[in-house]
Amino acid sequence: MKVLIWNEHRHEQLNEEVAKIYPKGIHGAIKSFLETDDIEVETATLDEPNHGITDERLAETDVVVWWGHLAHGEVADEIVEKVYQRVLEGMGLIVLHSGHFSKVFKKLMGTGCDLKWREADDTERLWVIDPTHPIAEGIGEYIEIEKEEMYGEHFDIPVPDELIFVSWFTGGEVFRSGCTYRRGHGKVFYFRPGHESYPTYHQKDVQRVIQNAVRWAKPTAREFSSYGNAQPIEK
Amino acid sequence: MKVLIWNEHRHEQLNEEVAKIYPKGIHGAIKSFLETDDIEVETATLDEPNHGITDERLAETDVVVWWGHLAHGEVADEIVEKVYQRVLEGMGLIVLHSGHFSKVFKKLMGTGCDLKWREADDTERLWVIDPTHPIAEGIGEYIEIEKEEMYGEHFDIPVPDELIFVSWFTGGEVFRSGCTYRRGHGKVFYFRPGHESYPTYHQKDVQRVIQNAVRWAKPTAREFSSYGNAQPIEK
Amino acid sequence: MKVLIWNEHRHEQLNEEVAKIYPKGIHGAIKSFLETDDIEVETATLDEPNHGITDERLAETDVVVWWGHLAHGEVADEIVEKVYQRVLEGMGLIVLHSGHFSKVFKKLMGTGCDLKWREADDTERLWVIDPTHPIAEGIGEYIEIEKEEMYGEHFDIPVPDELIFVSWFTGGEVFRSGCTYRRGHGKVFYFRPGHESYPTYHQKDVQRVIQNAVRWAKPTAREFSSYGNAQPIEK
Amino acid sequence: MKVLIWNEHRHEQLNEEVAKIYPKGIHGAIKSFLETDDIEVETATLDEPNHGITDERLAETDVVVWWGHLAHGEVADEIVEKVYQRVLEGMGLIVLHSGHFSKVFKKLMGTGCDLKWREADDTERLWVIDPTHPIAEGIGEYIEIEKEEMYGEHFDIPVPDELIFVSWFTGGEVFRSGCTYRRGHGKVFYFRPGHESYPTYHQKDVQRVIQNAVRWAKPTAREFSSYGNAQPIEK
Repeated sequence: MKVLIWNEHRHEQLNEEVAKIYPKGIHGAIKSFLETDDIEVETATLDEPNHGITDERLAETDVVVWWGHLAHGEVADEIVEKVYQRVLEGMGLIVLHSGHFSKVFKKLMGTGCDLKWREADDTERLWVIDPTHPIAEGIGEYIEIEKEEMYGEHFDIPVPDELIFVSWFTGGEVFRSGCTYRRGHGKVFYFRPGHESYPTYHQKDVQRVIQNAVRWAKPTAREFSSYGNAQPIEK
Repeated sequence: MKVLIWNEHRHEQLNEEVAKIYPKGIHGAIKSFLETDDIEVETATLDEPNHGITDERLAETDVVVWWGHLAHGEVADEIVEKVYQRVLEGMGLIVLHSGHFSKVFKKLMGTGCDLKWREADDTERLWVIDPTHPIAEGIGEYIEIEKEEMYGEHFDIPVPDELIFVSWFTGGEVFRSGCTYRRGHGKVFYFRPGHESYPTYHQKDVQRVIQNAVRWAKPTAREFSSYGNAQPIEK
Repeated sequence: MKVLIWNEHRHEQLNEEVAKIYPKGIHGAIKSFLETDDIEVETATLDEPNHGITDERLAETDVVVWWGHLAHGEVADEIVEKVYQRVLEGMGLIVLHSGHFSKVFKKLMGTGCDLKWREADDTERLWVIDPTHPIAEGIGEYIEIEKEEMYGEHFDIPVPDELIFVSWFTGGEVFRSGCTYRRGHGKVFYFRPGHESYPTYHQKDVQRVIQNAVRWAKPTAREFSSYGNAQPIEK
Repeated sequence: MKVLIWNEHRHEQLNEEVAKIYPKGIHGAIKSFLETDDIEVETATLDEPNHGITDERLAETDVVVWWGHLAHGEVADEIVEKVYQRVLEGMGLIVLHSGHFSKVFKKLMGTGCDLKWREADDTERLWVIDPTHPIAEGIGEYIEIEKEEMYGEHFDIPVPDELIFVSWFTGGEVFRSGCTYRRGHGKVFYFRPGHESYPTYHQKDVQRVIQNAVRWAKPTAREFSSYGNAQPIEK
């Protein structure tokens, strides 16, 4: 199984504090806990040619993990279109935190994807709403993150196909923080935590969710559907 | 349109503090804000013969509102069965607060309906998750209830057909506090607020939700489905 | 309540057979059965300036009904964007038949919206799957259309929020032919029937579904959500 | 992983034609294609003591497959309760064909579970509606069963959490024939095909669906939720 982690990789270069938390970049941190015997992980970043995303690379990728924030507008529309099409063909997509505003997520959702936010060291508790879901495997009743950016409802997304986590924040907000969607032949998972100024991706249960999600999102082995003019059943 | 409010009506008789808040009973309080020109409201309570529920009465009822807590076990199984069957036939059912453990709600859900709870004057904020839903009409971004009993996840219900409200509580919990279900030809709405020791049903936006819900739950005018042995299409 | 029927209006001008079935255009036929005392109906077509869609007109429209087929590509992107934004703000949208490939429906869905099709005088039976839904009010167990174009699965749409009708076709296919979606503050209903070469929109039960849908899709009266930087709860 | 196949096992003893198709019983046929290196399969039937279902056996079972038809009423309520409780605790349940009327399925659904039926050698085509679902892995665009009993809508079930297959029948009906539900910590899959007088369970793609479903339904490894009185977050 092949996973491609895409990271904007700007905060880590612009901000010393972020660089201290993620010295190998957010992509490097995620790579370190996703690699196992049966998962091959590569990374790509915004400033590489084609943002590190080529047709060949996408064609053999099972799941993309996406982190972006400052520079969604700099991601080329044609690259967005390639990733979007690959999701419809069956590739999984895990969208993290501020990736809610990425072009590819908005295009897949068909909504504005806006929300409330606050940077004020709120504590976040992600409660497991769906205890049956494989993405919640190994997770307790909730994940507690001592300090995080707040994201609050209304979150302008379509009704999730599955709602796995709902977050509580100190300041009085709730948020649908773990949501799945099917788009074409592909599976999409949005997972809220991961503001660049906090060590969220170093936390074990957050890592476990992303590990679970990557396995859940792998393509279902089936031929692609046929569309267009069709003959009737023969009798 | 005819609405029947069913109330256990025990707390109000056993506890002076509750009686002060709801001098005409919880059913009386709800009746006062549901009655309008086009909605005829009656009430029924546990200690009436047949708990106030007869076949004739049910047959002409469009929507039942249900509040119970102390004495779920005293509700006769045959009465529960009658209400259940009428829901499958198309009658609406609004289940309030501790009604989550009523026999009829558990039978309609097919799950244990358990949850976490705490009586500690938590503040509750019910955030509107689905801004399109008619049950949220006229409601702001959230309803704030200064003091309420806490109900927390995991709430052991089936995945709601529609999730309209999610509650935040001071003490660190979230709860799916406004949920719809279709069962047979009937619509069911569960709404969390309403612990007997707080004046919750005197709050305008809580009243508005119940008013909206009653209209939403009224039966859809259609013939009942036919079941059993069926003939093929004739050509 | 104000409804705007948008019709491509090309088949009726290019094809005599279609013109005989819909002498006032498909929009004219739909207008004739949507107008009532409390619903004001206007129409707009592709070849009018701005396709008949201005900011002022959209601002006071509650629900748009959309029929297009030959010329989806000729609909200007900026007009599509306007309609899309109004849906997110709360305007209802009813998409008919070949409108599945319209720019605005694809943008709202986030998928390819492709399907199988056949023009071979199949009989269609639209079975009511959700007997509780107001869009099915007054409809029997199924709607039978003697001759229609076939649309078959896989239909490349997101999982519907509500699935109301599933179609059976003589030639061996099924199709999710009545689907609802929430997008932003707006409600969307896709309804399959209505190929231009058949008198489908003259059929009473088909008309009833569209009448029901328009009422169901009207905006929910609420203030628009606030997004962006938010203050914590004050205690 | 341990699977327990429960079969009523009456038709096979009462009817020579059925015995010819399933000489080892329907349970024997299913066992033969479920057993693999990592899946241990046992069987149980109605006429065994306790219907072959003890607390010990259930405690170590990951998934139960259920086939019943003639004698749902003979299944003891206390056994039904045991199976039901184990599902809420996390055990998977695959309900086949006429098992729609089994006590345990009805109890989990909370509805009447009625439907239309016809024994007339209809051809059935099960179209894949959700191409992303692991239960559809390895399946083409549809499964065609040359002769089967017809089951038709309206099927009186709750809205499925996931709708994977929709059936087409020669005689003019459609049916939601592959449906998932979460109940408590357990996963439930209903799969329509399998009338006793047809060799349906000898068909490879039908077998593949059941194999996939058993893997999908295995318990998610998590601690059981805690319910009841709860302490607030400590700060």
